[in-house]
Amino acid sequence: MPTQTAIWIDGRPGSELPLPDRGLDFGDGLFETLLFSAGRLMHVERHMQRLENGLERLGFPASLPQITEQVTTVATTLRSLAQVDSALRVTISRGPGPRGYAPPITVRPRIVISVAELGYDWQQQHSPAHLAQASIRWGTQPFLAGIKHLSRIEQVLAARERLAVKADEIVMLDQAGTVVSVSAGNLFLLIGGQLHTPKLDSCGVTGTRRQLVMERLAPALGLHTQESRLSVAQLEAADEVFYSNALVGLRPVCSFGERQWQRHELCQSLHRQYCLHYE
Amino acid sequence: MPTQTAIWIDGRPGSELPLPDRGLDFGDGLFETLLFSAGRLMHVERHMQRLENGLERLGFPASLPQITEQVTTVATTLRSLAQVDSALRVTISRGPGPRGYAPPITVRPRIVISVAELGYDWQQQHSPAHLAQASIRWGTQPFLAGIKHLSRIEQVLAARERLAVKADEIVMLDQAGTVVSVSAGNLFLLIGGQLHTPKLDSCGVTGTRRQLVMERLAPALGLHTQESRLSVAQLEAADEVFYSNALVGLRPVCSFGERQWQRHELCQSLHRQYCLHYE
Repeated sequence: MPTQTAIWIDGRPGSELPLPDRGLDFGDGLFETLLFSAGRLMHVERHMQRLENGLERLGFPASLPQITEQVTTVATTLRSLAQVDSALRVTISRGPGPRGYAPPITVRPRIVISVAELGYDWQQQHSPAHLAQASIRWGTQPFLAGIKHLSRIEQVLAARERLAVKADEIVMLDQAGTVVSVSAGNLFLLIGGQLHTPKLDSCGVTGTRRQLVMERLAPALGLHTQESRLSVAQLEAADEVFYSNALVGLRPVCSFGERQWQRHELCQSLHRQYCLHYE
Repeated sequence: MPTQTAIWIDGRPGSELPLPDRGLDFGDGLFETLLFSAGRLMHVERHMQRLENGLERLGFPASLPQITEQVTTVATTLRSLAQVDSALRVTISRGPGPRGYAPPITVRPRIVISVAELGYDWQQQHSPAHLAQASIRWGTQPFLAGIKHLSRIEQVLAARERLAVKADEIVMLDQAGTVVSVSAGNLFLLIGGQLHTPKLDSCGVTGTRRQLVMERLAPALGLHTQESRLSVAQLEAADEVFYSNALVGLRPVCSFGERQWQRHELCQSLHRQYCLHYE
């Protein structure tokens, strides 16, 4: 078992994907990135729930039991080998098919699982992040909003901009200029005692940790989270800002352009709650 | 040389894609589908021009010479084997890279070429097409409009709807309800003697045959093509409708829902012109 990276395709160890594959050809598929820690997959139910929504939205045959089985088998293998904390990515493509956009009559989804060492202790909160603003924006596509499909060029281009400006993360807006997310995470803004997170009805990904904050972590602190349309000005005026990501947990934000934040109390409290919530 | 389907990866025959690959992971790449006919690739310059635009838009390293070389080598092989008329798809992904959206510092694009028999005589015009209307719409994304990137779920879902309603092609609208294209081709409408094609500044793909119609075929018949915002009502009211596609050429439309067309003169004339324009 290589601890660096390992790949399974349709249940077998190996890193050679048989072509054609509609995941490569058209971004025709979905994925989830799970945190494997201390021998277990964290919040696996939330990931599988989003995946199931995605499979349904894209019209895949019901394949969740098969996916869950393969993910569980890999996790069991990792546990037996005392694998260090890792990112486990499961990719479901619509598999092979004839030339052209139309899916084949009989779809055989392909399941690719890859594991890579995390390389840090997720329970120790990340240092506060410096944010920049991406010029690439989320496209407007209500039908695909929320799910984690494979067609992710916008986030790739945003992450590329992040590298260029040497920021820790980068804020992505929608076509109307409203704040949506960072390139790999969901944003939260504390404004006058009210916790807000961007509404994701026309773009973006509904993060598993976003849901966790809204449904469990914030309520545990007596806070309700409001899904809102938030402007860049509101982001800049917020009292505290942080973002969520499955591998990072909750990370405080210390700057966005000229604006700086010293206050990270809520994010710190939520991250403590987060470390207690093994689902 | 199998005449059915053959695949080359980075210049070598073979159909096993080494993972990770950012094309599969994020739809991070581009493609072109060329018509190989009578021993040559048709309109290859137009395809390579669009590909070059796409490479630049996505921030790929300049790799067109290398791509062109591999495409040319495959075409030469096909010619030497007297390959029948075929579709040659070239896929460029951003290649391997570490986990996460951000591209690696050094990008090594991967070039996949696949060839599949066409199975019909493209010079013989297709029978007039029955069109339906897709419920899935194009997302609004000006930055990626026009280029042929790998993130193509919308067209996949439209093509899936087409199969379900047993139409020959399916009309896709944008978020505002304006007519954009069919699932795999560009639309043209003749309205009161004026030829129109949808503006593609916020979504859609600028087809090579669309450009050919606009720049050479229509002018040869004394017609100027106007890029317009076109409503469904205008589509229904048009005097003649057809669509263009690299493998099909120009195909007349005989119905869209209740609306029927018997008139296909312009499309027939343009297709005759098209068969004369070997570029």
